[in-house]
Amino acid sequence: MQGSEIKKGELALTANATLTPAAMGFLAGMGITDVMVFPPPAVTIIITGNELQNPGQPLAYGQVYDSNSFALTAALQQNGIRQIKVVTVPDVLDQLTDALQQALELSDLVLLTGGVSVGDYDFVLEAATRCGITTRFHKIKQRPGKPLFFGTEASKLVFGLPGNPSSVLTCFYMYVLPAIIAMSSKQYGLLEKQVPLSKSYRKAAGLTHFLKGYYDGNTVLPLGAQESYRMRSFAAANCLIEIEEQVTDCIEGTMVNIHLLPVE
Amino acid sequence: MQGSEIKKGELALTANATLTPAAMGFLAGMGITDVMVFPPPAVTIIITGNELQNPGQPLAYGQVYDSNSFALTAALQQNGIRQIKVVTVPDVLDQLTDALQQALELSDLVLLTGGVSVGDYDFVLEAATRCGITTRFHKIKQRPGKPLFFGTEASKLVFGLPGNPSSVLTCFYMYVLPAIIAMSSKQYGLLEKQVPLSKSYRKAAGLTHFLKGYYDGNTVLPLGAQESYRMRSFAAANCLIEIEEQVTDCIEGTMVNIHLLPVE
Repeated sequence: MQGSEIKKGELALTANATLTPAAMGFLAGMGITDVMVFPPPAVTIIITGNELQNPGQPLAYGQVYDSNSFALTAALQQNGIRQIKVVTVPDVLDQLTDALQQALELSDLVLLTGGVSVGDYDFVLEAATRCGITTRFHKIKQRPGKPLFFGTEASKLVFGLPGNPSSVLTCFYMYVLPAIIAMSSKQYGLLEKQVPLSKSYRKAAGLTHFLKGYYDGNTVLPLGAQESYRMRSFAAANCLIEIEEQVTDCIEGTMVNIHLLPVE
Repeated sequence: MQGSEIKKGELALTANATLTPAAMGFLAGMGITDVMVFPPPAVTIIITGNELQNPGQPLAYGQVYDSNSFALTAALQQNGIRQIKVVTVPDVLDQLTDALQQALELSDLVLLTGGVSVGDYDFVLEAATRCGITTRFHKIKQRPGKPLFFGTEASKLVFGLPGNPSSVLTCFYMYVLPAIIAMSSKQYGLLEKQVPLSKSYRKAAGLTHFLKGYYDGNTVLPLGAQESYRMRSFAAANCLIEIEEQVTDCIEGTMVNIHLLPVE
């Protein structure tokens, strides 16, 4: 019946509404073929580190396989991002500066991995300064991901992620993904839930801990292998458990905040 | 340190583990470049209905715009499916039978829309029989989506979805998506939650109702425009509220089961 879905002149969708499958069906049903959208951000990933080797190649002494480019690319794709460029740069300040400058020109969002601590070869902060990036914060009271860097240059966002794979992905979910959601004017990020911890966890006060966890629908279990260079438990995790800064003994049954990871 | 992530000979990931971004990082970190995966199913969508017109074209008397192909394609893409073929077929038994036969040859999963009631032009059941499809069920005590058909032919799955857009998408989320999850050996589907209803809802006993709802993090609101031909509230919904078959008065504050829709 004419006018039964919506009256002439009525608002169909509010500005900034998410174009879900239902919203697309709704618009198509009214014969609408073109809408203005926020494009998902174009992203450049800059992988730093002289010690990195590509999977499939033999490892020389002191080398490790690059895994961050693969994990980050998959995480970006899972969140609807299609324009992803991966650049590998040695630990040389000039080269890193050039790569970062190019990335700022081509992308809305730049993710660097490695080089944000204050070691001899940690050139990210210096390169960021040379590119005119304003530091918004550097270092956070958290584990993993303590050396996290965030800066901006005009509308461009730059995250300097630590080099350890588990830190990279934790910082992605807790900081980068919320930024992407905001840049895309989406309304939701990771789903949070308060659930009971199924196994006690102890830590020193002073840092927020993000633990790889497995939520079975009732309780959440902090998995083993929580070190930031290890990915084994992350591969089995379906959530990150947030244990607050000042907490030391988190006993079994305590309600904790979990961030459910996307499942595609 | 050599062997600190995993010992030689140890199992890295169990069979059927989901290849999350973390799992990909974990495998890459061990230098692994090739893994066996379950490919996502190839899908054919068969749109039936003489009354359908493409958005962008003028509507003749009695015509409505096809919206189901757009909503279903978007919903499939959002769930990682890339091989999607859309076929439009008039309400002619022979043509529908041919299209269905071809779809069974090319795809793992076939979705038909329209033609599953028992009207004069509802040929899906007859075409399914002619193609050797075994009926697993037809008609469910639910609203929307009462005429839903499900059949199988060897390993192929066939869903006959009702023609109304809101029924199509509700049946997609409640039946088709769980089937896709199972076919892909994934471990999770839509997240369910028990939350209080923020506005009373009345219905007759006899059918399970799936209501378009908006969950604000605390309570869930059943939206207006719940008719199965309307998509307006679906476009604003972030969950489906399940009100059980025998329930009649569901008063404000009652705990109800909600199925959170994917947000990509």
